[in-house]
Amino acid sequence: MVTVGVIGSTGYAGAELMRLLCRHPQVGNIYAASQSYVGESYASVYPNFHKVFDEPCQVSDMAILAKKCDILFLSLPHGISSQHVTEEIIQECVVIDLGADFRFSDPNVYETWYKTTHKNRSLITEAVYGLSELYRHEIQAARLVGNPGCYTTCSILTTYPLLAAGLIEADSLVIDAKSGVSGAGRGERLGSMFCESNESIKPYGVATHRHTPEIEEQLSLALSQGKETSGVIISFTPHLVPMNRGILSTVYAKLKTGVSQADIERAYATMYTNEQFIRLLPYNTFPETRWVKGSNFCDIGFTIDQRTQRIVACGALDNLVKGAAGQAVQNMNIVLGFEEQVGLDAIPGFPL
Amino acid sequence: MVTVGVIGSTGYAGAELMRLLCRHPQVGNIYAASQSYVGESYASVYPNFHKVFDEPCQVSDMAILAKKCDILFLSLPHGISSQHVTEEIIQECVVIDLGADFRFSDPNVYETWYKTTHKNRSLITEAVYGLSELYRHEIQAARLVGNPGCYTTCSILTTYPLLAAGLIEADSLVIDAKSGVSGAGRGERLGSMFCESNESIKPYGVATHRHTPEIEEQLSLALSQGKETSGVIISFTPHLVPMNRGILSTVYAKLKTGVSQADIERAYATMYTNEQFIRLLPYNTFPETRWVKGSNFCDIGFTIDQRTQRIVACGALDNLVKGAAGQAVQNMNIVLGFEEQVGLDAIPGFPL
Amino acid sequence: MVTVGVIGSTGYAGAELMRLLCRHPQVGNIYAASQSYVGESYASVYPNFHKVFDEPCQVSDMAILAKKCDILFLSLPHGISSQHVTEEIIQECVVIDLGADFRFSDPNVYETWYKTTHKNRSLITEAVYGLSELYRHEIQAARLVGNPGCYTTCSILTTYPLLAAGLIEADSLVIDAKSGVSGAGRGERLGSMFCESNESIKPYGVATHRHTPEIEEQLSLALSQGKETSGVIISFTPHLVPMNRGILSTVYAKLKTGVSQADIERAYATMYTNEQFIRLLPYNTFPETRWVKGSNFCDIGFTIDQRTQRIVACGALDNLVKGAAGQAVQNMNIVLGFEEQVGLDAIPGFPL
Amino acid sequence: MVTVGVIGSTGYAGAELMRLLCRHPQVGNIYAASQSYVGESYASVYPNFHKVFDEPCQVSDMAILAKKCDILFLSLPHGISSQHVTEEIIQECVVIDLGADFRFSDPNVYETWYKTTHKNRSLITEAVYGLSELYRHEIQAARLVGNPGCYTTCSILTTYPLLAAGLIEADSLVIDAKSGVSGAGRGERLGSMFCESNESIKPYGVATHRHTPEIEEQLSLALSQGKETSGVIISFTPHLVPMNRGILSTVYAKLKTGVSQADIERAYATMYTNEQFIRLLPYNTFPETRWVKGSNFCDIGFTIDQRTQRIVACGALDNLVKGAAGQAVQNMNIVLGFEEQVGLDAIPGFPL
Repeated sequence: MVTVGVIGSTGYAGAELMRLLCRHPQVGNIYAASQSYVGESYASVYPNFHKVFDEPCQVSDMAILAKKCDILFLSLPHGISSQHVTEEIIQECVVIDLGADFRFSDPNVYETWYKTTHKNRSLITEAVYGLSELYRHEIQAARLVGNPGCYTTCSILTTYPLLAAGLIEADSLVIDAKSGVSGAGRGERLGSMFCESNESIKPYGVATHRHTPEIEEQLSLALSQGKETSGVIISFTPHLVPMNRGILSTVYAKLKTGVSQADIERAYATMYTNEQFIRLLPYNTFPETRWVKGSNFCDIGFTIDQRTQRIVACGALDNLVKGAAGQAVQNMNIVLGFEEQVGLDAIPGFPL
Repeated sequence: MVTVGVIGSTGYAGAELMRLLCRHPQVGNIYAASQSYVGESYASVYPNFHKVFDEPCQVSDMAILAKKCDILFLSLPHGISSQHVTEEIIQECVVIDLGADFRFSDPNVYETWYKTTHKNRSLITEAVYGLSELYRHEIQAARLVGNPGCYTTCSILTTYPLLAAGLIEADSLVIDAKSGVSGAGRGERLGSMFCESNESIKPYGVATHRHTPEIEEQLSLALSQGKETSGVIISFTPHLVPMNRGILSTVYAKLKTGVSQADIERAYATMYTNEQFIRLLPYNTFPETRWVKGSNFCDIGFTIDQRTQRIVACGALDNLVKGAAGQAVQNMNIVLGFEEQVGLDAIPGFPL
Repeated sequence: MVTVGVIGSTGYAGAELMRLLCRHPQVGNIYAASQSYVGESYASVYPNFHKVFDEPCQVSDMAILAKKCDILFLSLPHGISSQHVTEEIIQECVVIDLGADFRFSDPNVYETWYKTTHKNRSLITEAVYGLSELYRHEIQAARLVGNPGCYTTCSILTTYPLLAAGLIEADSLVIDAKSGVSGAGRGERLGSMFCESNESIKPYGVATHRHTPEIEEQLSLALSQGKETSGVIISFTPHLVPMNRGILSTVYAKLKTGVSQADIERAYATMYTNEQFIRLLPYNTFPETRWVKGSNFCDIGFTIDQRTQRIVACGALDNLVKGAAGQAVQNMNIVLGFEEQVGLDAIPGFPL
Repeated sequence: MVTVGVIGSTGYAGAELMRLLCRHPQVGNIYAASQSYVGESYASVYPNFHKVFDEPCQVSDMAILAKKCDILFLSLPHGISSQHVTEEIIQECVVIDLGADFRFSDPNVYETWYKTTHKNRSLITEAVYGLSELYRHEIQAARLVGNPGCYTTCSILTTYPLLAAGLIEADSLVIDAKSGVSGAGRGERLGSMFCESNESIKPYGVATHRHTPEIEEQLSLALSQGKETSGVIISFTPHLVPMNRGILSTVYAKLKTGVSQADIERAYATMYTNEQFIRLLPYNTFPETRWVKGSNFCDIGFTIDQRTQRIVACGALDNLVKGAAGQAVQNMNIVLGFEEQVGLDAIPGFPL
């Protein structure tokens, strides 16, 4: 049994982590740390935890928690974790950071898109990008994991095999993504209010969303067979959908000449046939976010549009599970040598 | 490991049963029987089950399944199960009927409210009412369990202790209940369509809803200390709320003279302190359906309105879990001598 | 053509007022005053007003606006309007206050429930309660109108005829009300966020909601034939429903002995047959908020529950129209001698 | 005052037509014809029409209604109107068909995509495509108007100026569209049920949706300056969003070399500056469906992604208004020589 800590446990991703960890058969002690609710019962902040986890919220002291924990999850706004994680801390325990600070190999890319200075360039080389299906081997030995973003996990998993197998024109890639409102977090912002997002859909962050460079780095690695972290440039447009959870990425790309349905199916199968959390749908069948809700699954489907010689591929996942907390636990399982699906076997609920 | 069957597995309650049973640590084989989808893969009907339960739907033959199963769940429209359950079947296996046919001790009450003839009066005396917290002892020995309705479970759990302890005027009881749309089932009816129920609230079945007599029978038993199945007559009004899941019952009753907050807290505590699935909220705190969603919990809170000398008590549960499939599994656990919470320890998800 | 001003025009009720006033055939100039957005284009705050009302928001100076306007609407948090309205202002123009400050005849009642001191007791006697159907005559001559609350309009319209005609036991009244989220206003509060209110229902303000005494004052007047402003005490419980708009009040009361369906129909007909905005539904037919959405209608239906000898009556309206801005415009029409339905003839939209 | 008829008045688009026509100042008599509800009061089918339009539904006899009406609106499933419209009928009255039968200049295109035989090829040459902003002049003289689809209106209005001005590479066009559920109509289908579409997003009709060729014909005409009805081939993917109303089209295209923001703004301004129902948003501002809900507006915004040299342009409209009934009334106004905005000046409601 291991001891874990969650810093930022009272945000939405943090609460989902708590939900998974409280039922993880290998997890013993859990420290739920918070900025705003120190000393208050966790169940008073999230009443769904009554009779489940009624302990008080802890002070968010990374150094102290690192000494007590085997794994420390950080679920904080970008720019915070890089200020506090140190070499000492990651010697004490493995840090899985759900924020953006340790997702990029090139701090300049981070600084350009996040419009801030990276506070901890020296640790970047220690960080492993936590897209479990791609970097399982590296994650096993990692002390610091940069857990991917929600849009990015969905978009990369859907697109990576196509580029890795050389089936599409990289410069034709358009990713039109849609997310539920929980992706915006629990902060009290006008745009996250019920009446402002209910019964409407809107694009946002057009051509500027911060998940863009994260997707591009991984897709560049796919295209270059791991040699280059840049090169692929995509159009990425997220949209806000009036639902609590779920992300759908609709990917458009020109097929290279002669590419067949079988080629594409082979590319996906090669990468994902043995993956427990990736579900490949039959040809011309498409994912819907309801079928993955509450689970760590990512569903992928595609069709070939003969008229335009484009592939249209879609991926769907639960932004708080495979897009955040679930993948973080998956990474914990990898780091600690557990079976990867331990504590993550929830079946998607429907209707939920 | 036990073998179970679900007849009516492709309705919403049936699918929720499947979800619980597929992850129940004591359940081995599962037969998913269906009327409309025999031979089709269960996961093609409910794609959330891909990689989880891809087996084909079975023929709904109760006699055959009874021979194969330890427990047979029936999730059928009222009037069907009573036609097919026989003495032989319940000798073969324990039947847990999620429909209404075996919930009433008096078939005349059933016939009056359901406007039909009861097809199997002889088995009524064998049936045990499956409100687990109230009839645990009887359920242990039952061969046939009439699993309660969703509104009824919520309304009875909230009101029973007040009557059993003699704290309220029975004839002043008003229960105003609200439910998500999944309670109406998967049938393609106009009123269940998105645009017809979204962004609106309505009452329905006013003064005629069939859960009324079921609540009244149990509350009569509460009032009479188990001696009478009639006597309590209530006003019960259900409302349709634009959400997938959840039931909230708001209960109003005149307090008997001199009844104090402490009396009420004692009445609830007496019945529920040791109950794992009942969560009593602090005084003047009220349940919300979001805090129980996806779980087998029923949350209860109340306040005393000194001005009107009424208690206002609220109960909330997930209509497909504690209000249907969860309670059915709870009853299975009781029948088979398992720990009652086995397979039912899901923490409510939020935001979900 | 008249000139009107709206102070608090950037709240939800204010914006709905703007929408109605911009299309009112007798309204010429409109001043949209705001606290937070002075100088900014109104359409930048509410982009639905592009090409409709692109003028800048005005300073919220009541004295200055009173000089320019025939009618001044106040849509402010309680306690503010009473600080600023003066005898001089209501000599300059008619003030229609959508807040609570001038709704009560007894300032002590206001102070008890609103837990504040009334800032302007002298003007209370000048104020007319703006429930148009009840006080049309008084409103015609009013200089200061206290526009009713949303729950109150719905609850009073549904219940008033029953008490006025002596058909029900006043002390048995229970009003269980449900509202969409726009009733909570545009303030950025946790409980109003999408993920916090979507897919859930909860009661709030149980036994303490401030619309209670407002309903009680009017129902007391109904019971006493206008002689008493107190006497009726009700149980009133509001609930938050995941939808933008709409209020439903479900009213329960014991019928006096011998009261028939015809008696009740007569009581409703007597008061409402000539009312353009009240729609009486056939016996045993119930309103749904979707059928009034976007309109100034209030729909009312009822049934008699012979078993309990209670009437169950329901009223439904759009909280931002008949429950706020629409009724305010209706009152303006009455004050200015226009036809009452001018500018208020929108047909409810469906599905909307 | 004119007399109008609506055949198919009890579908969602038909009901929205009724709502607009009942308040149109130049419309006198209205015949609401229906297939399923002949003889029943229209208000019993749509209770929002109580006290507004309580007349009975008429028999759907096109020939008879044509004699009585100045304008006949058809809101029927595809394939029906072409069976019944005749030369005689369109001599009697002007027919505005909201279905697909008369939208295409080439019946082969229709037959390929709709997988049916066109029943009335001879009338195709008489039909005018009813996208009001593009074909105002032709509509004035039309006897038969093929009113555009919802996705098509939104997508064409957003894209047309870019192609007409030669600013984008036509073969790079990707249109990712999102619609509320009312677009699927009032038929009782599983996919339109609340629990099946709520809290989820999905693509559908990928590479096969029937609005594709309609968009392509108009965009081909744009590209060829009116000379060719084919040539442009697009990727078009619709998605179902859990909301009642609204369509958003997100359009991606490669800019031709040297095209500037000013060029694009000029292209839009040239076509739309004098259009009352088109609202061009400031650069890098994007439409949201909530800001057009309930109105005949189409909002358009765009940005240039310098990294990819793509334009991302978005259009938003209310699928039942500008995408169906509103545009039909706009076309009626054009045909009859009324001011184009008569009866269509509703301000979008918010929050609605």
